[in-house]
Parts: sequence; structure tokens; C-alpha cells
Amino acid sequence: MKEFFNVETIEAVLAHAPAFTPVESETVALAEALGRVLTEDIYSDVDIPDFDRSTMDGFAVKAASTFGASEANPAYLNVCGQIKMGARPDFTVHAGEAAKISTGGMLPEGADSVIMVEHTDQLDDTTIEVYRSVAPGQHVIEKGEDIRTSSPALVKGTRIRPQEAGLLAACGKTEIEVFRRPMVGILSTGDEVVPVDRVPADGQIRDINAHSLSGQVLEAGGVPVNFGIVKDNRDDLMEKCRQALQLTDMVMISGGSSVGARDFTVDVLAGLPDTGILVHGISISPGKPTILASSGGKAFWGLPGHAVSAMVVFAVVVRPFLDRICGLAVTQRRFPVQATLSRNLASAQGRVDYVRVRLFTENGAILAEPILGKSGLINTMVKADGLIAIGMNTEGLDKGAIVEVLPL
Amino acid sequence: MKEFFNVETIEAVLAHAPAFTPVESETVALAEALGRVLTEDIYSDVDIPDFDRSTMDGFAVKAASTFGASEANPAYLNVCGQIKMGARPDFTVHAGEAAKISTGGMLPEGADSVIMVEHTDQLDDTTIEVYRSVAPGQHVIEKGEDIRTSSPALVKGTRIRPQEAGLLAACGKTEIEVFRRPMVGILSTGDEVVPVDRVPADGQIRDINAHSLSGQVLEAGGVPVNFGIVKDNRDDLMEKCRQALQLTDMVMISGGSSVGARDFTVDVLAGLPDTGILVHGISISPGKPTILASSGGKAFWGLPGHAVSAMVVFAVVVRPFLDRICGLAVTQRRFPVQATLSRNLASAQGRVDYVRVRLFTENGAILAEPILGKSGLINTMVKADGLIAIGMNTEGLDKGAIVEVLPL
Repeated sequence: MKEFFNVETIEAVLAHAPAFTPVESETVALAEALGRVLTEDIYSDVDIPDFDRSTMDGFAVKAASTFGASEANPAYLNVCGQIKMGARPDFTVHAGEAAKISTGGMLPEGADSVIMVEHTDQLDDTTIEVYRSVAPGQHVIEKGEDIRTSSPALVKGTRIRPQEAGLLAACGKTEIEVFRRPMVGILSTGDEVVPVDRVPADGQIRDINAHSLSGQVLEAGGVPVNFGIVKDNRDDLMEKCRQALQLTDMVMISGGSSVGARDFTVDVLAGLPDTGILVHGISISPGKPTILASSGGKAFWGLPGHAVSAMVVFAVVVRPFLDRICGLAVTQRRFPVQATLSRNLASAQGRVDYVRVRLFTENGAILAEPILGKSGLINTMVKADGLIAIGMNTEGLDKGAIVEVLPL
Repeated sequence: MKEFFNVETIEAVLAHAPAFTPVESETVALAEALGRVLTEDIYSDVDIPDFDRSTMDGFAVKAASTFGASEANPAYLNVCGQIKMGARPDFTVHAGEAAKISTGGMLPEGADSVIMVEHTDQLDDTTIEVYRSVAPGQHVIEKGEDIRTSSPALVKGTRIRPQEAGLLAACGKTEIEVFRRPMVGILSTGDEVVPVDRVPADGQIRDINAHSLSGQVLEAGGVPVNFGIVKDNRDDLMEKCRQALQLTDMVMISGGSSVGARDFTVDVLAGLPDTGILVHGISISPGKPTILASSGGKAFWGLPGHAVSAMVVFAVVVRPFLDRICGLAVTQRRFPVQATLSRNLASAQGRVDYVRVRLFTENGAILAEPILGKSGLINTMVKADGLIAIGMNTEGLDKGAIVEVLPL
């Protein structure tokens, strides 16, 4: 298989994502469910709440009993009982009556609203004065107002945040069906790359990408599986790739950004069964020499070797594929931060440039300061708070332009 | 100890945070370090890179050998060698010479720059034609350009993101000293609250807050420790509080939003040794009836019972205290999302109102749509993407106003 370098737009690359399928489901305890993605719609077994519930400390009444009440002309009501928390009241509230109730208490039969204790005066054990009128339903959460058993409380493909965990608790879900966390195989290549625990000799450099990419996989909800460093040897690389593809759900090789090493990766891919190269070059910078293949239905990435390039490609290209494999279906709620560009920024046409920026606040405005520097310098990513994209047909951006920053 | 309700501003409450001290340190493996906070400055054992490194495939040269070279008037250079990846070249490049080099290769003695292979033609085994000139240092990362051993690569109090993990790898750190994850005790109170695995009877409701707050603690880097549900009984509450304070680094009781239950919590706090109430009411909504005490140097929170209120108070008030206890010292890089308000929004003066909003995109602009609804409805937090704050002295905001959204 002979491939030639055929650069595609980022949109064209992202269009391949739906071709990959989400992983299977597993059952997890509610306490372990944060960050996981639902494989099914969730219904509650009871209405939430399952009764009309007071939102205030005060008196449960028929609203009509308070109509016209004011400071000058208070209503007088008979206290007919007191509501015990967590229990159904065993009496009924009639016109002209009031029952003492606390926040969270169940409204008795007959009552349709709650008058706040602050708007009453207790005259004696059985009589209160009411200074305001309430409307029917006021200071009450109605049965099923939060969630009804008949409609889904949460839908399939939702990632569980703290509030979804709370709602799952309300629905009585002690165990949840979620997509298992996809395993992502990570390989580093290059004769110059040595493991972290080695002191680099002349011309050697420690393996940065395995660790920064592992972090990005974890943040996205995946499980990184590190297959170590492969020297520039076709057979070793082939063997490791085969292994990684067998054991994981997606594979990323980083390194090999030299033309020779890239050919090498393409060569290995050509030798794997049921494998086709989908993308060989993307019109983005950094990140142009990125390869995407499908091997046995699994995504296989050849990422550039420079530390910044590999991270940028993960953030803007690989992540949407991983989201897909994670089962995420609901719009990913990652909104950019808007900021004002602190200086002019040149950019080449014909590609999307991703520029690292540091964010800071000045006179109440958020400013984005470009961090220029070679894409081999990991330090520039440490200084960065996010990325801005400068579009394909843009020659650059002026100081003062409003930019959208994808947080890093 | 008799306390009266004495509402403080949120700024006054946050000013108490520095009085609490961060937890101790522990050692973790690099692969476990994501999200953790450094207890010390990090120095690399070697310069990164530890040699002048090529950023391109091409030829290492003395820049002066290319000066004046152009398509019309190319320079001719002698190929004096080829650089092996991961090794020190054993030869020197002189004027008029070029050495073949790949991306990541070590520059030989004498060379100060790299000319891209695309700007050359190989005429024969020993001669290349060069069509462009390069400047000294071009396409080279100099020794120590990323990180030098003499200055800290990362500083104490930094939270480790994927790029910091990459940098730690480059520095040779297989084990890292970090603050241990603080344990946060969570108690729910209320006679009406039942555990998730129980079907609520009349007037009962499942424990939502323990689960939503646990999620918020996890997201902030803490370890939630659930002490279960305490019925409205002073002795039980006292005993559980004592236990939680002993076993964890911070305690949050939720529930007890009724006036009676609040008095109860205050009463229990008064009975604990070495305990002082710092805050009893905050001028925010929701969340006014929030209590903060210091007990044996640990923060003890009485949070409101309503599901939304408890989460909002955690996000805007408790979180900065937990960040402090986590050891975070570097500015927390949480920048708000700017959005345009989709409708008018009224607000009371004299307090800060936190309004849940859903974000959506319309004609390229991000809009924030207020989600109105009682603070007892967890469902409204599930619909929300973030919170906006309406300031103390503001009567409300107009449709079209630019608002800052704190992501949820």
C-alpha cells in the first residue's frame, strides 16, 4: 500500500468519528458513577417528591383563608395541628384553619399553600394572625414537580456530573448502567526516547508524550494503557501495535514525526489485517502530520512527536473520537471562554492555526496573551490556559479581537 | 452559646479561608499524579533538552554557509555525515558542510542551524543544493530552551494537568510529593430523609445532597466520606459530628434548613470543644442560612437542605476553602464563560443572587437562558450549565446583558 500525503480539513477528519462504535456497558455503584456516561434512559420509581412538600417554615393553609389579609387587616386562623417531618399528617385542613409545618414537611389534606412564619403572629396555642395572603401552590413543591415517573429523568449518553449523581440518588438508583471506560493504548516511538527513570545520555530525551497523553485520556474518561517505547524497528513496532489493538479500544502512537518515521508507521499499518488509512495529514498547525486509520473497527492514531503538537491534536481531533467511544451523546457542555487578544497575531492561510494562550484579567476584562514558542517546548503548554483557533482563510488576528479560548 | 442570625457578605466569608491550613504531603507515582497539587518546587535533573536539537528533517549547517542562497543562486554544500538519533555525532560541521539530520536529532559540533529538506536538493551522495538561507538557531531547540536545571520547572501549589504530567516526566520525576487528598465528611440530617436504597414512604424523600456534594468534593480533588443520615436528635448529631471531625479534614452537614434544625446545629457546635462559629448566614440566594464554624482548626459547614442551595453554596463558598485545604496556591484557572442573557432577570438588592443558566449557541453567539425554579428542584441543576451572579446593588439584568457564567 503506497500512501501519499493528502491533507484534509479538520471537519473532514471529524466526520469519521460516527463510524466508530461506543464500548459496552457495565454496572457501577452510584458512588463510583461520577464522570461516567449512561447507557440507558433513567426513570424514577417514585414521583419526586412523592407528596406536596413545603419549601418554608410556616403554616399549611387553604390559600383562600388568607385572601385579603394585610398588616392593617389580618386574618385569624385556628391552628388545627402540627406536621411531623417524614410522615403523612393524619388530619385535614379546612377553611379558616392552619397547620404548623417545617421546610420539607408534607402538606395535609385540604391545604394548598404555606404561609411563611415571618408573616404570622402566634396569638395563643390555637390562634394565629396572618398579615399577608398567599396564592394556591405558594411555597409548595407539588408532587412530581421535580421528576415524574412517566418521563425520563436522565437520557442515555449523559455524562454524570454531581447534580446528575444527586438526581440518580433521588430516583433510587444504587447501581447504574454506564459505558465502561474505554482503554486507550499509548506507544512512544523513536530511538532517541528513553523512559522517565533513565537519565538521558547525549542526544536522548525522556518520554514526555506518554505522560501528557495519559493525562488527557484520563480527563476524557478513558483508561490509558502504556505500551512503552518502541525503537525504530519495523517488526517491534508491528508487534506492539498488534498487541495494543488487541488489548485496547483505541491506540495512539506518538513520535515518528520525521518523514522517515511516518513512512514507517504507514508501512506497519499496511501490514495489519483489516486496516485502512482514513486520514494522512490534517490542515492544522501544529499537527499536520497526523495519521488516522481504522483497524478492525478501532481507531488508530499516528500523532506527531513534538510534545505540544501531540497534545493539541489530542485536544482538537482525538478527543471527539474518544467522546464517541465513551458513549457521550448529549452535547458536550464545553463552552469556550471569550477573551480579548492582547497583541496582533499572524497566521498562515490554508490551515487552522491553534495558538496557545495565557489568560489574565485586566480592568475586569479577560485578556488572551499568545504564548509563542516551538511546538517541541512542553513548557509553553504549562504556561497556557487554553487554545485559540485561527481559521483557514484568516491571515491573522488584530490586537483587541475577541477570541474563543478552548480551556486546556 | 446564644447566636443570632448575622448575615455576612460572601467576600467577608471567603476572607476566613486563609485561616485553615493545607493537609500534609504524600508521595505518589507519576501515573497517579493527575489532579494532585505539588507540595514543593520541581527542578529538572538535566537541561531539557540536554543538547541542541533539530525541530525539522533536513541538514545541520553553519547558517553562514547558506547566506545569500536562493532559487536563482543556490549554495552548494558537502554532506559530511548523517546524524544517528539518540546519539552524539562524532564529527564536526565546518563551513561549506552539511550533515543529514532528522527531527529530534542532536546537532553536531560546529552546526548552529538546520535547513529543511524541502529547501534542498541532493545532487549526489556528497553534495546538496540549498535554495534558502537560514538564520543561526533556526529550526533548533537550544540546550535548556524548554527547562533549565537552575530555575524551577513547576512551583509549589500547582495542580497537575496533563501538560504538567508531561513536564514532570521530562524532569525525570517518577514519584512526586503532593498534598494528600483531603477527606471531607458528609452528613445529612432530617427525619424525612431516607437512604437511596429505601423506597420513600409518605412524607419521606431520598438523600440527594450526600450524593451531589460527594460529586462536588471529588471534582475539587477531595475524598468524600459519607457519615449517613442523622435523625433530628441532638445527641446522635453531636456524636456523628465529633466522629466526622476526628476522621476527616472538613465536615459538611446538609439539611436542617428549617429554623428549628438550624438552632439544633448551632446548639451542637456550642457543645463541641475548641469550636467557634465564624459565619451564621451569608447575603446570597440561595444559601442564606449557611453556617461556618472552626472546630479544632477544621472547617465545619452547616449547608442548607434544599438540593440546589447546597450545591450552589458548595460551588461559590465551600470550594475556595477546599482549594485552600488541598494546598492550591497558584491562581485557580477557572475562567467564566461570557454569554448574552436571553431575557430580563429581576433580582433583590442587598444580596448576591446566583441564577442557574442553560447555555446555547445562536447565530454564533453564546446565550444564557435563566432556569427559574424552586431551589428544592435538583432537576433545575441538571438542566443548568452554570451559574451567574447578580450583584448586591443590582436590581436585575436586562435581556442582552453580557453575563459571566461559572460552569457547573
